[in-house]
Formats: sequence, C-alpha cells, structure tokens
Amino acid sequence: MGRIICVGLGPGDPELMSLRAHRLVREAQHVAYFRKAGRAGQARRIVEGLLRPGCAEYPMEYPVTTELPFNSPDYIDQLTAFYDDWAERLSALAQDEEVVVLCEGDPFFYGSFMHLHVRLRGRVALEVVPGITGMSGCWTATGTPITWSDDVLTVLTGILPEAELTRRMRDSDALVVMKTGRNLPKIRRALSAAGRLEQAWLVAHGTSRQQRVLRLAEMEEADCPYFAIVLVHGQAPA
Amino acid sequence: MGRIICVGLGPGDPELMSLRAHRLVREAQHVAYFRKAGRAGQARRIVEGLLRPGCAEYPMEYPVTTELPFNSPDYIDQLTAFYDDWAERLSALAQDEEVVVLCEGDPFFYGSFMHLHVRLRGRVALEVVPGITGMSGCWTATGTPITWSDDVLTVLTGILPEAELTRRMRDSDALVVMKTGRNLPKIRRALSAAGRLEQAWLVAHGTSRQQRVLRLAEMEEADCPYFAIVLVHGQAPA
Repeated sequence: MGRIICVGLGPGDPELMSLRAHRLVREAQHVAYFRKAGRAGQARRIVEGLLRPGCAEYPMEYPVTTELPFNSPDYIDQLTAFYDDWAERLSALAQDEEVVVLCEGDPFFYGSFMHLHVRLRGRVALEVVPGITGMSGCWTATGTPITWSDDVLTVLTGILPEAELTRRMRDSDALVVMKTGRNLPKIRRALSAAGRLEQAWLVAHGTSRQQRVLRLAEMEEADCPYFAIVLVHGQAPA
Repeated sequence: MGRIICVGLGPGDPELMSLRAHRLVREAQHVAYFRKAGRAGQARRIVEGLLRPGCAEYPMEYPVTTELPFNSPDYIDQLTAFYDDWAERLSALAQDEEVVVLCEGDPFFYGSFMHLHVRLRGRVALEVVPGITGMSGCWTATGTPITWSDDVLTVLTGILPEAELTRRMRDSDALVVMKTGRNLPKIRRALSAAGRLEQAWLVAHGTSRQQRVLRLAEMEEADCPYFAIVLVHGQAPA
C-alpha cells in the first residue's frame, strides 16, 4: 500500500525544515518536485545533500511559466494537461510505493501541489506536512513583528488588478504581497496610491544565503528577483 | 557575550519543530516561556522531554489573561509592568548567557514575544527563529488548501467589533480568525451575516493529539477550546 506525502520544506534555509520533513526526505525512495525547465528548482535545492543514494527523482517541469498570461486559455490548457499527466503518473507509482512530493514553503498556502491534490484526492492515500511559509521567513528577516494585538493582515497576490490592490492596501493594518516578479511596478504604484509605499519592504530569497531585505521605495524597479515578497508591518502598540 | 533567541516551536506537534528550533532547545542552559498561572503552558508542553538536565527554567506567568477586557486601562497597566519586569530580568541574564525564549507558532505572528522584543531591541543581541504558524497546522488538518491562484486571504482576530468582522468576512476569499475563545458567538454571528458560516471550519489544538476539526455551523457554542482557529477556504479553480 503506497501513498503520496507532500512535504512542506519551509522558506529556504534547510535548517528551517521540520523534523518530520527532514525524516521523510532522508528516507524517501521516490521524490517528485516542480521546477521551471532548465532550472534546479527551489524545492530540490533545499534538500540538496539529503537524499539517499538510489532515490528516484521525478522533476515535474512546467510546460510554461511566465511566457503566457496566467488566465489565458492556452496557459490554462497547457497547465491542466500537465497536472493531469503528473497526477496519473504519481498515482500509478503510489499504488505500491511511497512518493514524497517536495514543496517549498507550506503546501496548502498558494502551493502548486494543490493542483495535484485536487486530482488525487480519493484515488490514493494522501498526506500533507505543513511547513514554515515563505512570508514567515521574510517577516522574520526584517527583524520586526508583522502583526500585533487586533491587527488585520491581508495577503494579496501581485496578479490582482491595480485598483483592487490599492483598495485592499488602504484597508489593512499589515500586508503581504505574494507573486511579485513582473508585477512589482504595479504593486509599487498601488502601494503609493494607498499611502503605504514608505512603509513597504521587499524581501528576496528570505532565510537563504542570497537573502536581501530592502525598503521597496529605495530599490530599482528592474532589480526584483522572482522569490520576493512585499511586506508592510502592522501597527505596534503605542 | 550572551543573547536572547526566541524560538518558534510550531503549531503543537513536536515533530513540526524546525531542525534549528530543536537544536537550540536541546542545547539551552536557560529557557523562558509564557504561561497562564497554574498551567503548564503550551510552549513548554511542546518541548517536554527535550530540555537537558540542569537547564534553568523561567516561567513568565501572565498577571491577568481573560479576567479583564484586553483594552481596559487596568489590563494594560498590569501587562505593561509584567513585560517591563521580564525584559529587565532577561536582559540582565543575557549579558553573559544565552537565553532561549520558547514560543508556540511563529513568534512575529501575533506572538507574545513581540512585547519583550520591542523592549529588548538595541539593549541585547536578539535573534528570532520562525516557526510553522498555528493557522498552517489548522488548515493542513482540514485536508484542503487555504489559498489558490489569486485568492485574497484575510487574517482577523475575534476581538474586532462585530460589524467590522462582518464587513471583512464578506470581502475576502479565504479567512482565518485568530483569538476565538469567548469571542466565538460574535464570530459566528459575523460569519452568518456575511453569508460564510456554512463554509467555516473550527480547528482546535491543530496538529496535537487533542486535534478536533469541526464545521462551525454544527458545533455547540459552549464547546470551544482556547487554542482554536476559525477558517474559511479560498475558492478552488473550476
């Protein structure tokens, strides 16, 4: 009797993996992970040096990432076929074997695994191990608490329309903006319109060796890495 | 040269502690932790069996918890004196020693440690280790992803006024409500007014042995433990 275990690996620093994740990764005979074609993949990088000899690896390479708009029919068709295909392959493998799917951060929080999870549920035994989110790693890197007392925290993605970003940025104490990348100029404009730009931080590669913590107002627009999160801290008590 | 390290212990299951947290806890000579007077304390419970023999323990007992309204002058005065006192004691100890402060969840996400952090910053070397949040443990326990694609997630606390809770519950895809306890009847009414009660889950003691996952609409009002979080999942893609 096999199963599929999706393991949250945390924000990037391998020492921030949970004890359970660490054990499951070291014991795995089969590991699968998403990556952009031609890249090592963030999840795979976190477990470097931990896999046992002979562990079979299944890199799941996205057919498309940012080449097409995320809501175009062509993008959706290609991604749907990709997730369908890997759901089939992993579920066939998991009839007899235990398969560990590696995910950076926390799998159920904007993770790609959910596209497999929704296809696999009810067909195969499934388990998910939560992880430290990328946003926790990033706000810890700023050295300041994100939320206090009765603060409201809103988590947004940079793919939302600019007017909606602005409206929601005005109406929250603390803010986290995920999926920045090429949306950063729009996120900046929205923060500025909401009067929050001066309070905003950009944290790239939070907790990893390449970590950078910058005030968003002071950084160059062209200079934003993909693994970056924008943060505005809540209001500390007087 | 001493320092104070606040270690996030995660949502409750000791195996969900990070490797770094586990190492720091096992090596600690001095550990401090918050607790309600007369209780073991959730943070202390998570590390049961891990402390080395002779490790000095500093239980920081709240002078008051839910006996007074959280915004009354008397409550604020008592808490202020309590945090001032412990900031003094820990900073004196940390001149020569390393002190580990144990915190459940993630210290910078609604954690009590921030009240010490704001008093200690600049006076003593400080480090914070992020942890898996209680909310990650709880949404993982429901077996369903909390956020997909461009979902907006709003994190609220049950101490907000009912009308504000209702307004914000209407205006978000996914919801997390922290600090439930005696606020649960109000949270229920707000969810109902916002048309979200049928989608709401209550997760008590997420990831621990006493974990309970319930549909909020189906549970008894009187029956809500303190370590509970209310969740509404985001909208899965069609």
